[in-house]
Amino acid sequence: MPKKVDHEARRQEIADALWRIAVARGLDGVSLRDVAAEADISLGRLQHYFRTKDEMLLFAMRSVSARADERIRERIEAVAGAVAEGVLAVPPPRIVLREVLAGMLPLDERSTVGALVGAAYFARAVHDERLQAEAREGIPGLAAFLGDLLSRVHEEGGLRAEYADADPKDEAMRLISLVDGLSTYILLGVHSGETALGLLDGQLERMWTDGR
Amino acid sequence: MPKKVDHEARRQEIADALWRIAVARGLDGVSLRDVAAEADISLGRLQHYFRTKDEMLLFAMRSVSARADERIRERIEAVAGAVAEGVLAVPPPRIVLREVLAGMLPLDERSTVGALVGAAYFARAVHDERLQAEAREGIPGLAAFLGDLLSRVHEEGGLRAEYADADPKDEAMRLISLVDGLSTYILLGVHSGETALGLLDGQLERMWTDGR
Repeated sequence: MPKKVDHEARRQEIADALWRIAVARGLDGVSLRDVAAEADISLGRLQHYFRTKDEMLLFAMRSVSARADERIRERIEAVAGAVAEGVLAVPPPRIVLREVLAGMLPLDERSTVGALVGAAYFARAVHDERLQAEAREGIPGLAAFLGDLLSRVHEEGGLRAEYADADPKDEAMRLISLVDGLSTYILLGVHSGETALGLLDGQLERMWTDGR
Repeated sequence: MPKKVDHEARRQEIADALWRIAVARGLDGVSLRDVAAEADISLGRLQHYFRTKDEMLLFAMRSVSARADERIRERIEAVAGAVAEGVLAVPPPRIVLREVLAGMLPLDERSTVGALVGAAYFARAVHDERLQAEAREGIPGLAAFLGDLLSRVHEEGGLRAEYADADPKDEAMRLISLVDGLSTYILLGVHSGETALGLLDGQLERMWTDGR
């Protein structure tokens, strides 16, 4: 299906152009025409792929999520490899949890691009039902996934009593919110990525019975 | 000084117009001309008060902060009144802390307006050094204030060991970040204000030695 592949590749190229603008100056007031210019195609051609700015932003945001998933998967695989080789002795669920949360922080260029696109998305989504729907679908799924990991840590006796008493999904939602806020303050230059990661780790450590 | 009062009053009127647009449809692509139209004044007159959109946004954001301070002060005074009358027996610092944090959540119309202006501000500030400076000044001050409250709770023996071990400013930064993320997910419709407040209270309760 070369045609479909081309179509997807072109959509990704356009999303990449949108990303570059998002990183360089934000998306406030950016038009389809601006993105077409950045992608070096005509406006008509761009509109063949995306009719509206929100449609384009939705695709760009999904693309950000997919790349974040990939990045987090790489982090987990690196850790899993170390466990298999006997380098690490700590049980996996809490590590997976930590890597997913750390992977959501803008700590390097790739994740910062994602966070900047996310910031632009957020500013529009608060006024757009369709864009909000994406968050309403994605976040509870993420909370359920992280909640399951917390339950597994608990089954292994690794979760402190006061954290084990809470609904795992609620606890996960608190962690997601914490990471979201920590990310905001990285982007605003209030603290460094390293500081934010330390604050996240500080919270995680006190959740575990062995404190690490 | 009637002239200065008028000047400030007019700036506030313009900021109010900006707020109304921020609430109704967001500030993406909104021009000085749009705000002038909403404020029912000429563009030239508006530019007498604000030369750029960022200057206007900075004023609107400071105005949001001032109103949030006022709202939080009201909440604290209401609680302090109840303590003085003997209705409440719980020691004040933890209550002040809780009211400040709860007051940052978009739980009613006034605080939602503030959060929506904040969202628009955030989306621009990530690309604007001058707007970022505002966050870099304000947030550490807030963290220091909340950190002092935590230290006072600790002095009264109210803070659990694992929270007392952390730097109070770090702990405060975690709470600010948590509230920031919880607010984001209220605005995106992921959870209700009530749910978010419950998640905040759940975190606070486990920080106190008596668990409430």
